[in-house]
Amino acid sequence: MSFSLTVLGSSSAVPTTKRFPTAQVLNVHERFFLIDCGEGTQIQLRRFSVNMSRINHIFISHLHGDHVFGLYGLFSSYNLLGRKSDLHIYAYRDLEFTLDHFKKQFGINMSYSIIFHPFTADQPYEIYSDRRMTVQTLPLRHSVPVVGFIFREKPKLLNIKKDKIIQFKLGIKEIRSIKEGNDLVRPDGTFVPNNELTLPPVKPRSYAFCTDTSCFPSLVESLKDIDLLYFEATFIHDDRKLARITSHSTSVQAATLAKKAGVGKLLMGHFSNRYKNLKQLLAEATEIFPMSFAAEDGDTYTIPEVHDDQLRQ
Amino acid sequence: MSFSLTVLGSSSAVPTTKRFPTAQVLNVHERFFLIDCGEGTQIQLRRFSVNMSRINHIFISHLHGDHVFGLYGLFSSYNLLGRKSDLHIYAYRDLEFTLDHFKKQFGINMSYSIIFHPFTADQPYEIYSDRRMTVQTLPLRHSVPVVGFIFREKPKLLNIKKDKIIQFKLGIKEIRSIKEGNDLVRPDGTFVPNNELTLPPVKPRSYAFCTDTSCFPSLVESLKDIDLLYFEATFIHDDRKLARITSHSTSVQAATLAKKAGVGKLLMGHFSNRYKNLKQLLAEATEIFPMSFAAEDGDTYTIPEVHDDQLRQ
Repeated sequence: MSFSLTVLGSSSAVPTTKRFPTAQVLNVHERFFLIDCGEGTQIQLRRFSVNMSRINHIFISHLHGDHVFGLYGLFSSYNLLGRKSDLHIYAYRDLEFTLDHFKKQFGINMSYSIIFHPFTADQPYEIYSDRRMTVQTLPLRHSVPVVGFIFREKPKLLNIKKDKIIQFKLGIKEIRSIKEGNDLVRPDGTFVPNNELTLPPVKPRSYAFCTDTSCFPSLVESLKDIDLLYFEATFIHDDRKLARITSHSTSVQAATLAKKAGVGKLLMGHFSNRYKNLKQLLAEATEIFPMSFAAEDGDTYTIPEVHDDQLRQ
Repeated sequence: MSFSLTVLGSSSAVPTTKRFPTAQVLNVHERFFLIDCGEGTQIQLRRFSVNMSRINHIFISHLHGDHVFGLYGLFSSYNLLGRKSDLHIYAYRDLEFTLDHFKKQFGINMSYSIIFHPFTADQPYEIYSDRRMTVQTLPLRHSVPVVGFIFREKPKLLNIKKDKIIQFKLGIKEIRSIKEGNDLVRPDGTFVPNNELTLPPVKPRSYAFCTDTSCFPSLVESLKDIDLLYFEATFIHDDRKLARITSHSTSVQAATLAKKAGVGKLLMGHFSNRYKNLKQLLAEATEIFPMSFAAEDGDTYTIPEVHDDQLRQ
């Protein structure tokens, strides 16, 4: 089952000819979750062949223009294309003013409903849950209220060994019970411990999105063992004073965090347009944490399914 | 002196991977006038190397999203780049709500002022004038109030023949008087008629921008002799019913209007994304009016200076 991230925009506040403002789309089992929506997001969705109609949930990290100015265009195009299904928006509560303005001035006779799920940025909240996954906020630190988002697959059931189904002629109820971790116990005295009947489940995958924030110690614990971490690296190490002043982070800070948290991969983005290329920024990060990457618009990062027993090998 | 139009976006309401929503920039003597501002306009300005800092005036035809959703991003980037000079916006009066919302939610501590010049769409108004040119509105017909814009150079002074300056030892006051059309008259009885002293002035150039409108008869008179006419051709002739229902125009209507009005060139745009290519649309127009062109994002059309005596040759 798919679990992959496509970068739609990787620039910081001012876009360039090669980098659009922040937006990403996470494909979880062919359900598409849009994360931030900078200007031109609908254009990038088309450019990178993402099926717009499969996006039902949009998560907005904070209310700076380079993370939200694509909403109006996306809303309008959905309307022109005759969208029917509800569109859910998760954002800091003040986005309500923007949504209200859109509805009043541009959203007359809309073909679908925009449903707003406001949150505050004071503590972590679980803001979304379906049968496969959850989304939690992670309060970050910037000039305005901002959160990261942690997408996690829910723990999966144990895999039953096929030969055991035949050997014990297991019924449907028994199979369900065993997959949930129970032993096989029958009135006739049969007893087989669960670990003889099952294989470990597929490991739940996780993705964390953190941008427009300074780097602070408690993030290590919050981001422990995340499979793929997107963390902003607006600046190179030489410009760390600028990072401090503007409440942003550097390549070195992002990589140090990734290393301490033991994440699988670090994907950096939100690059300042002052750098002609990202060689130095990437070199600084990989020296600390080799599995560091610099986002490019259009990149897709896939997190493969891994069985716990594979991990142990 | 330059008088040229660059197309930034040529799609209709829903952008494609190749066409951004409507926006154009008119370069008049190195002053840049932005016309409409669809989503991604700031990205196109960079892509086509237009110096954003030289834009001080923005003209908005109507308040549909594909003509205004780029304003917020442009406003924000100007602020991040430290713009100081006033930015003048000319639009139907209701844009005030959008500007107010921007200022309240995203425009805190702006480095420059946005000055709004509201107009109504009930009759033509001269909404801009400087020493070189004027801009007039032209009421059009669509589902919401909409206007076209006619940019005209002001009539220029006569050109004085250099040999006459020497022959008559003309003073500064005399030269100014002759350039304004007067004869040379001196207290000593000297009399030289103006047409012996001067050459015709350079012909004032004109550009008209008309989009999101049906085609109606009085446009012929309003657009008489325009050098370059941008007129929407959302649809091909076969889809003329769709054009009527949606208050848009067809290739045939645009070309017929251009022919009747005797314009220099017709530039068509605002194409529906239903057409894979524009061969048919362009063929329909050129059959009626050979100087018809189909806009592509990034195209520049230059209107050269023409002396009246050249025209007569």
